[in-house]
Amino acid sequence: MSDTKTVGVIGGLGPVATLDFFERILNRTRATREQDHLRLLIDNNTKVPDRNAFMRGDGPSPAPALASSARGLQVAGADFIVMACNTAHAWEAEIRAAISVPFLSIIDETVKVVADLRPEAVGVLAGDACVAAGLYQNALKTAGVRCIMPDANTQKSLMELIYRIKSGDTGETVRRASAKIAQKLEAQGAEVIIAGCTEIPIVLTADDIEGELVNSTDVLVERTIVFAGGELKA
Amino acid sequence: MSDTKTVGVIGGLGPVATLDFFERILNRTRATREQDHLRLLIDNNTKVPDRNAFMRGDGPSPAPALASSARGLQVAGADFIVMACNTAHAWEAEIRAAISVPFLSIIDETVKVVADLRPEAVGVLAGDACVAAGLYQNALKTAGVRCIMPDANTQKSLMELIYRIKSGDTGETVRRASAKIAQKLEAQGAEVIIAGCTEIPIVLTADDIEGELVNSTDVLVERTIVFAGGELKA
Repeated sequence: MSDTKTVGVIGGLGPVATLDFFERILNRTRATREQDHLRLLIDNNTKVPDRNAFMRGDGPSPAPALASSARGLQVAGADFIVMACNTAHAWEAEIRAAISVPFLSIIDETVKVVADLRPEAVGVLAGDACVAAGLYQNALKTAGVRCIMPDANTQKSLMELIYRIKSGDTGETVRRASAKIAQKLEAQGAEVIIAGCTEIPIVLTADDIEGELVNSTDVLVERTIVFAGGELKA
Repeated sequence: MSDTKTVGVIGGLGPVATLDFFERILNRTRATREQDHLRLLIDNNTKVPDRNAFMRGDGPSPAPALASSARGLQVAGADFIVMACNTAHAWEAEIRAAISVPFLSIIDETVKVVADLRPEAVGVLAGDACVAAGLYQNALKTAGVRCIMPDANTQKSLMELIYRIKSGDTGETVRRASAKIAQKLEAQGAEVIIAGCTEIPIVLTADDIEGELVNSTDVLVERTIVFAGGELKA
């Protein structure tokens, strides 16, 4: 297992989601000794300007910080880069331009998993900037899957929940409110729900909904382990 | 808070202890927005050769990997370096030689906290290589504190527990067995117990013993936040 690739993780977007990603990587890797685990270089870069604020016209662009983070990880020895945040994939082009190692997209990998389920329609829970950038809408369209987005008011409530989770509030109230939004999309015909923001799976689980939940964090965790040459725990 | 220092963390020694360190940093930092959290560069370097095996004469030296990890973190932007592992501080000189930024020692910071408690004697729970290198024994001697180490058989049991925690077994059996070893040192006169291995506080808490528990991970967490210029949560 010593010939596995070193994973570079752009994180801190937010830090709790990064911790969650790291924990899921450890839990999903088959390992009997610590040397069996993947080497991860994690940049918990909490100084990246707020992505959603920028999209609202209320702050600087996160692009330079994200590109610099990616470059730093490569310089420190990362063989490929992932980012534990869906929304920040709006700046995927700037990140790819800053590195010469591969970049694994959480959006593309998640949509691949969803497309394999061949649903009639899929509901997307994502942050404002992720929605505004059309990341899931475009990728699902290319994959030929109809997508259902929350209406404006529901999206507003969802964004409030995301900020609460980012600040560390992962209690029952936040969990129930997230579940209610997912169930609303199911009532509109969504057979699959994408947890398309790495904050959401911290509170929302498959038990909270009727149909299938595709957790973008878990998809990235599995793809990262496989791409690095590690072994998935059954 | 944007003027806080970036922390470089040599980790993966083992990965669960690194995850634990990261989580404790997040929990101990006063933050209302993700930007209030510290920027951490974490090298979860699971490919560092086994420190305890090397001390037994059963494997290569971890020194080059630790030095390279420290250097990589500095190159990637770390303003100072910490290491989420007590034992690996046996190679502190090699790490310091590889970097030009400060290095905060978990051993020195922990002993400072213990010395302030002015105990008659202190019990040390640490890994074999940490004991063999005399890390705590020497630092405590310099501080004028008498230390009580587990006898050979007890140390053997402790090392087995540490390997179990490293492999992910953090259940009740492991917790009870760790507590029993700490209580044995208390029976020998230790007024303070040092959890001097970052795996131990994953299972052992202050409730498990009579006297005071000084958790080296928590000490390093607090000193790291303060040194970086972050704010401690009350």
